[in-house]
Amino acid sequence: MSIPKPGPLNGITVIDLTRVLAGPYCSLLLAELGARVIKVEEPDLGDDARQYPPMVQGRSGYFASVNRNKESVALDLKNEEDRRIFEQMLKHADVLAENFRPGVMQKLGYDWETLHERFPKLICVSVSGYGHTGPAAHLPAYDMVMQGVSGMMSLTGEADGPPCRAGISIADSATGMFAAIAVNAALVHRERTGETTKIDMAMFDCMLSLLETPVNQYLMGDEITHRAGSAHPSIMPFEAFPTADGHVILCCGNDRTFRSLCKALGYSDWADLERFATNVARVNNRPELFELIAAVLRTRSTAHWLDYFTRAEVPVSPINNIAQALQHPQVAARNMIVEADDSVQGTSRVLGSPFKMSAFADVTTRRIGPELDQDRAQVFADFGIVENGGASKVRSR
Amino acid sequence: MSIPKPGPLNGITVIDLTRVLAGPYCSLLLAELGARVIKVEEPDLGDDARQYPPMVQGRSGYFASVNRNKESVALDLKNEEDRRIFEQMLKHADVLAENFRPGVMQKLGYDWETLHERFPKLICVSVSGYGHTGPAAHLPAYDMVMQGVSGMMSLTGEADGPPCRAGISIADSATGMFAAIAVNAALVHRERTGETTKIDMAMFDCMLSLLETPVNQYLMGDEITHRAGSAHPSIMPFEAFPTADGHVILCCGNDRTFRSLCKALGYSDWADLERFATNVARVNNRPELFELIAAVLRTRSTAHWLDYFTRAEVPVSPINNIAQALQHPQVAARNMIVEADDSVQGTSRVLGSPFKMSAFADVTTRRIGPELDQDRAQVFADFGIVENGGASKVRSR
Repeated sequence: MSIPKPGPLNGITVIDLTRVLAGPYCSLLLAELGARVIKVEEPDLGDDARQYPPMVQGRSGYFASVNRNKESVALDLKNEEDRRIFEQMLKHADVLAENFRPGVMQKLGYDWETLHERFPKLICVSVSGYGHTGPAAHLPAYDMVMQGVSGMMSLTGEADGPPCRAGISIADSATGMFAAIAVNAALVHRERTGETTKIDMAMFDCMLSLLETPVNQYLMGDEITHRAGSAHPSIMPFEAFPTADGHVILCCGNDRTFRSLCKALGYSDWADLERFATNVARVNNRPELFELIAAVLRTRSTAHWLDYFTRAEVPVSPINNIAQALQHPQVAARNMIVEADDSVQGTSRVLGSPFKMSAFADVTTRRIGPELDQDRAQVFADFGIVENGGASKVRSR
Repeated sequence: MSIPKPGPLNGITVIDLTRVLAGPYCSLLLAELGARVIKVEEPDLGDDARQYPPMVQGRSGYFASVNRNKESVALDLKNEEDRRIFEQMLKHADVLAENFRPGVMQKLGYDWETLHERFPKLICVSVSGYGHTGPAAHLPAYDMVMQGVSGMMSLTGEADGPPCRAGISIADSATGMFAAIAVNAALVHRERTGETTKIDMAMFDCMLSLLETPVNQYLMGDEITHRAGSAHPSIMPFEAFPTADGHVILCCGNDRTFRSLCKALGYSDWADLERFATNVARVNNRPELFELIAAVLRTRSTAHWLDYFTRAEVPVSPINNIAQALQHPQVAARNMIVEADDSVQGTSRVLGSPFKMSAFADVTTRRIGPELDQDRAQVFADFGIVENGGASKVRSR
């Protein structure tokens, strides 16, 4: 029996060769939706992410979290007996996920054509930097490279400062999300028609898709969007302002709200000045208006202004750090932090599922990422796999 | 006949009440996968995004792009005849998507319980700021607010500078992506069991899910991640460095690559210094090492260093702006820019699909976002809907 995981993908089995982040983030989302995800890891050390901090009781908390509710079987895909076992597992699988460099699956003898012929109900999803076609297919790609090459970094940071990384490995995460969308769509198609497909997801394609608005601004507006700190390119004020001890975000989506802001600031007349009266005028005179507002806000604390503007019905928001964000009462109310028990690590906390569905319980526990090969016996029992001896050994358990 | 759109969601019909970005980005992804997406818009002005720049021939390029390959029918959901038509459309639908404030669907008489009873095969997906449950459910939410509240902005920007917006409306886009994952999973479940569900997606939940790594760093590592410009929190050098005329990204994922970098810079001895010899040492001595590398890189142009490090086999990358990113030869090779014809706007260019699947053609044309009510006759013909008179009129076509 696999771990019970009610959800819309209940009954779907994913064999998961992915490592580190983009691929594992995809299979994490599938697991959160109820799929049985079985990581197949190389016997020596397994997924590279097992070495990533923060370390908890000598094990990677990073790995434990991104691989929650997944199972682990260690197999050497170059060992004959292990390959036989792997292929028996594929017989029971709906999806095979991998994020090797293009060509590696072919070298292993597991190219799409071969797999498709032998396992006709199997959907295969590949995640790579530039995809499996085109002149850049062979190039290595890191999240940082993708943030640079795609244009993402050129859009992030202060207007007069250096380009910045979006605060997370967004190219990895976004690609994992697009891959999960594609896998689920392919499953819909298979359920409806019986046909399966190979899916070739590229981080570069996914980043461009994510950059929909600035790409459109260039393709249809002939304009190259540049970074502008916290400012929205076409609404003002709609950004962060400095206070005496931090920042607050003010969002004036229309002239009426801007008038409320001016009144609250004690300068009702600003809303009547031609250069600030409309959103277009405010965008065109951003530096002056920014300084006028900032000069007032710098006189008092963030806490003061949050309370003051809330009472004045001006849309205001704090800039939370991660700890503050997780203390928001909505986080507990929505089960967005759940508990995970482990015999070694004790009780940990990990993220809950963002997929809230009326037909399924919002489960408030998880199993943290498995130890290497932890689920070998159970998976083999479930799939009726008998080891013939000669299989590779896990050295570092 | 609907627009032919080969793809895994062929045959799936989405009735789409969403406006602006998070919801429409979800239905855009479903349309790219082959679903028939029919926007139902209010008759006066339709989707607010129809007013958003860039304007092309008096129409919104922003709308034209995000709503490519969707159809439009204008209906006033408070008008009795229009409601009858809407309900006839729902009979033919697989998915109903909406991103109203929580409570609006109830007021319209279209709460989940009612819809589920009348249209048992219909899946409903709601997208809102804080979700439909919890103490914050009623609060308004903008992308900027979500970037602030979730912690995203606290992670983005220079270490000693103000918090920055990730260069795009990432909370909107990510929520649209998570919603698309959920819709597809719910379709898989419906195909397998016949059961449908209401999906309640919150921008806040989705942003926390996207912040997997820093959230884990806090929950398991007791550490609050802070913004650090372009630097990776735990690898060095793995960031942007200034050149004489811009920046380049250098990625040294291990000591061997760092040694190659030092040699290429003409300072092989750096790799032998105790304070730079290991990745941990380099992270701990980041400011000194950054300045040493930057001092060399500032002497020559970006173009020089890209060529130089490529030949030296040191992972290097440019920081492209949007125009440069789209000129990458891989973009054309992967059909990531496609053409869209329109009788008014002429030929435009829009993004292609990131979903590359062997079973489906990678279509290289699109229809741009529809004019308000453009597809009324066709949709009614397809669904056998006859107007009885008394329906609302579209004023601004």
